[in-house]
Amino acid sequence: MHGGDIYRNHVRLDFSVNINPLGIPEEIAEAMHQGIDRAGVYPDMHYDELRHRLAAQFAWKENRILCGNGASELIMAICRWRKPKSALLLAPGFSGYERALAATKCKIKYYELQPGSNFAVTEELLQIVSKKRPDLLFLSNPSNPTGVAVEKGFMRKLALLCERTHTTLVIDECFVELTKEPTKWSLAGHMDLFKELLILRAFTKSFAMPGLRLGYLLCGDEVDVEGIALQLPEWNVSVPAQFAGVEALGMSRFLKKSARYIAAEREFLSQELEKLGAIVFPSQANYILFQWKDEYLYERLLERGILIRDCSDYHGLSSCYYRVAVKRHEQNLELLSALRMDDLTYFVKKN
Amino acid sequence: MHGGDIYRNHVRLDFSVNINPLGIPEEIAEAMHQGIDRAGVYPDMHYDELRHRLAAQFAWKENRILCGNGASELIMAICRWRKPKSALLLAPGFSGYERALAATKCKIKYYELQPGSNFAVTEELLQIVSKKRPDLLFLSNPSNPTGVAVEKGFMRKLALLCERTHTTLVIDECFVELTKEPTKWSLAGHMDLFKELLILRAFTKSFAMPGLRLGYLLCGDEVDVEGIALQLPEWNVSVPAQFAGVEALGMSRFLKKSARYIAAEREFLSQELEKLGAIVFPSQANYILFQWKDEYLYERLLERGILIRDCSDYHGLSSCYYRVAVKRHEQNLELLSALRMDDLTYFVKKN
Repeated sequence: MHGGDIYRNHVRLDFSVNINPLGIPEEIAEAMHQGIDRAGVYPDMHYDELRHRLAAQFAWKENRILCGNGASELIMAICRWRKPKSALLLAPGFSGYERALAATKCKIKYYELQPGSNFAVTEELLQIVSKKRPDLLFLSNPSNPTGVAVEKGFMRKLALLCERTHTTLVIDECFVELTKEPTKWSLAGHMDLFKELLILRAFTKSFAMPGLRLGYLLCGDEVDVEGIALQLPEWNVSVPAQFAGVEALGMSRFLKKSARYIAAEREFLSQELEKLGAIVFPSQANYILFQWKDEYLYERLLERGILIRDCSDYHGLSSCYYRVAVKRHEQNLELLSALRMDDLTYFVKKN
Repeated sequence: MHGGDIYRNHVRLDFSVNINPLGIPEEIAEAMHQGIDRAGVYPDMHYDELRHRLAAQFAWKENRILCGNGASELIMAICRWRKPKSALLLAPGFSGYERALAATKCKIKYYELQPGSNFAVTEELLQIVSKKRPDLLFLSNPSNPTGVAVEKGFMRKLALLCERTHTTLVIDECFVELTKEPTKWSLAGHMDLFKELLILRAFTKSFAMPGLRLGYLLCGDEVDVEGIALQLPEWNVSVPAQFAGVEALGMSRFLKKSARYIAAEREFLSQELEKLGAIVFPSQANYILFQWKDEYLYERLLERGILIRDCSDYHGLSSCYYRVAVKRHEQNLELLSALRMDDLTYFVKKN
């Protein structure tokens, strides 16, 4: 699951969920409320206005864009449509891919990234794709939970290779808008070059609106659009979600401001975590993966009302790995203060 | 599709969509707005409070209830989980079942209802189920588009038979709360008797909230709940939808008032349609199926800004069949007035 469960724990501060720390912009909240005032009619099942604006934003064709009730709905629909017999996943990686693939009886192979090289994606991935020729490859850029982002040059090579091996390449860019230089990583401006390419994005994280949910998919090939659409229920995107999405597409300045804020706080939080003895992995995203001294940090912080992500259940990670979101400065200070106290307690107990 | 498309037509009055004519109650609109104010957090993925209230309402077990982003999402999930090789549908009937079954390569048989007997469901259905032993049977009660409701006694016989033939029986009760006596038709109070039974309901129609969407499923067997849940994306029910649902479950008086209003208007509209020469089929629901003199009524009314449902594309119906929602009195009068004019125009043109 994404982060922890605030509904079944007493949580004062949720560092387990990776959303924009600046929260929902007022303009979008307002658009959602207007959407509620229009909840008496069915949503536009083709979400024309939203699709039109997405097409303009990415200079891509309207009939090669799909929206979903969150990115997770689209991930399931992709797997059902493509019915891959073999899929390649990067480990550690988002568990939602495995969940979606489980419904299609697919053989999953893992490309295991190494902590020793900061979980970097290397040329080795290209060799594996060449050799294994998987039907489908999920890659999140930046990666969740590591925060590692892969440069566009490499992504282009990978996408070209996938064209040759007939591998559907799904790049999950759900966090890319919160990095400082999205265009350094994203292939979203190059859809016309690749038929096997699907780029997944979401408003959920970028605009801190997980309670409503809205994801979208840029598709290289029209055939995929038609096939994936048939896997989705009709009217899957609610009226308030459509309103929010249309409003959000005009808010690039808010995103830039958010990315700057996150980058500064990420640096601060990383340095302070290191001072406390954590092994911090370099991240481009709005979250940080680190190793702590022991495997009970999650429980101890939860006792203090702070929820973090225990990453021991990720394929490719072991115990003592944790992920925290980059939140607002005062909240980050609270986390650090709790960790400092934890450090003392742990030290006392140990001796 | 449900009714017509208001986004690609100029529609002043939409009679094609079958929702409660009294509109969203203020309390629910308020709950939705409160839900928007909480859109900054992920929805409860297990929607505990909503499920708890549904369990209380139907005296059924919490772990045998599922919610969806509209009933259509649940219909697709049922088909994907059960993967029926053969399914029985009643014709005419809701086309969403065919769409969902199409994704699973299922052989569909139709039990064709006859206009001569007002599309009544008879003992013949039991014989067909006994003989054909389909893996799955969809039956909407009341039926869409005919408005025919089947009494509980018959439904119980059918459900018992389905236990014997191992037929998953999906009773779609999405419109039952808007009939005058829901308990006369519904098996929702008898879930404990049937393992093969799934009852589908929605807030969408009852509370006129199609823009947000919320459906739910009562399941006879826990195994089905687990299997169907795996077919659904996580966090599929948004925060505002959960808030709306919880609020709606306390509004039985509003439903009773709505049902009385609808029954009175349905009688009025039916009688007036008959006076205009329509063949009107008796309905228990918030919509009316009728035959008109010709097959161009849809287009002519649309020219006047009124959208109705042309039913010629329903399996089991031919041209000249139309469905209209029962709306508010003044709106029903407008429809009748347009039909009266249409009648004159038609008469003039014909001669």
